Amino acid sequence: MYAFQEMKRIVTAAVLIPLVLLLILKGHFWLLTLAAGVVALAAAWEFMDLADAGGAKMPRVLVLIAIAALFGCAFRNADLIGPALCALGLVLFLVCAFRSPLDRVLRDAASSLFCLVYIGFTLCTLPLIGAQEGGPSLLLLLLCVVWCGDIAALYVGKSIGRRKLAPRLSPNKTWEGTIASVAGSLVITVILIQLAKYLEGRGIDLLAYPGSVWNWLFLAVVLNIAAQLGDLAESALKRGVGVKDSGTLLPGHGGVLDRIDALLLAAPVLWYAQLLKQWF
Amino acid sequence: MYAFQEMKRIVTAAVLIPLVLLLILKGHFWLLTLAAGVVALAAAWEFMDLADAGGAKMPRVLVLIAIAALFGCAFRNADLIGPALCALGLVLFLVCAFRSPLDRVLRDAASSLFCLVYIGFTLCTLPLIGAQEGGPSLLLLLLCVVWCGDIAALYVGKSIGRRKLAPRLSPNKTWEGTIASVAGSLVITVILIQLAKYLEGRGIDLLAYPGSVWNWLFLAVVLNIAAQLGDLAESALKRGVGVKDSGTLLPGHGGVLDRIDALLLAAPVLWYAQLLKQWF
Repeated sequence: MYAFQEMKRIVTAAVLIPLVLLLILKGHFWLLTLAAGVVALAAAWEFMDLADAGGAKMPRVLVLIAIAALFGCAFRNADLIGPALCALGLVLFLVCAFRSPLDRVLRDAASSLFCLVYIGFTLCTLPLIGAQEGGPSLLLLLLCVVWCGDIAALYVGKSIGRRKLAPRLSPNKTWEGTIASVAGSLVITVILIQLAKYLEGRGIDLLAYPGSVWNWLFLAVVLNIAAQLGDLAESALKRGVGVKDSGTLLPGHGGVLDRIDALLLAAPVLWYAQLLKQWF
Repeated sequence: MYAFQEMKRIVTAAVLIPLVLLLILKGHFWLLTLAAGVVALAAAWEFMDLADAGGAKMPRVLVLIAIAALFGCAFRNADLIGPALCALGLVLFLVCAFRSPLDRVLRDAASSLFCLVYIGFTLCTLPLIGAQEGGPSLLLLLLCVVWCGDIAALYVGKSIGRRKLAPRLSPNKTWEGTIASVAGSLVITVILIQLAKYLEGRGIDLLAYPGSVWNWLFLAVVLNIAAQLGDLAESALKRGVGVKDSGTLLPGHGGVLDRIDALLLAAPVLWYAQLLKQWF
């Protein structure tokens, strides 16, 4: 059974990873926005299942429409996302005020708004990052940092992990795994930078990590920490409602939300880092 | 006792209304931002009391700091409000994930974010409206529409109101009062337009309502409806936790939140209306 689970896990990854890489490196902005939007809708659905298990009951269809609208804003003009988010949050509040039982109005309205920010806004940043100069390289770095950090944490944590990191939120995580995760992120970042140079030397203009290596390594550490915090925070949500997996959509991987929990924090952090770079 | 309450109510209004008018018509942008920020902090505190009564427990100091930060953004560059709001929401989520009891993580994080939007963002729009061309005239219209609508609804509703509007949310409101509220808004709008013309004729360049009267009347109806919905929605929040007044800060008027509940929806609606006007 364990071997079968592992097999399913590997097959799913083997199908999804090349698709994601192709999308990042060669996909148009509209395709990236669409793909991120579809993932967001699936993740939002799972989030609403979680919140329901905790006693909230959101206006599901409206929340999904609101998330789709956020991606519409991301596609048209990123400056619209903030105003649209607040307007949609107030509309959802009014809907809940008139439709939810009174003792659940705040809870339903607040959870709906939270879903818009935690799933909608965060995943909107993916196409926005992709559309920037050097966007595909940034997205590849983001995913590699998250994935390789995850893998390193899993194998090192399982074999030599002893000191618990945050037993209340996620009992299997250890400090050894966490440090291995940071190290794994650094290793893959060096590999990516070397790969970009190698390709450039052969005249292939696919990846670019300009500037100091140290800047990129610093960014990798920041993204890795954000990813691990995102993972822990989603664990807290799940444990709070007594659920183990957020869903069953991805064979062997649990739900969509479980798979992207690290990205939900790391992606906006990368986007904010890019914003800060533009301002200073 | 009733006469004493009524007296307190009138004295409080007689002190506050001239101050607010002076602030709107003559206050600098920074003073307007500061005043709206102070009101927002007081209202947020009352909101957190309400949410606590309903079982959430937010990181109060952090929420207040976050709201102050939103007003800082409004003062420096309004485009920062959206990104700052999302970033602050994610930070509050992380704090709740690590500090709240697990079964309250979602509730506390979502309520904190809701407070940022429902109190922080909405009141940020006041100085932003004030800073626009013709801003003081717009703010005066907004407040007059809300106040006069309120007064008309109160007196007409009390004397001839019979058909209940939304007994579940606010048992004392009637359709007669609601219609009187819209009518009161229209009357004050006409008075304001005439006043602006009269002042202009005397060479006093204080108010301006350019363009068609019908546009302003339409805006007044939209703002009035938003104000009444805002009032009902806050009633829903209060009734959901079994509280009558949101606080006791304003003698004879209940809490700050009770006094500004209509503005919390009408102000952003006016701001969005101005944004739409710019785009089309």
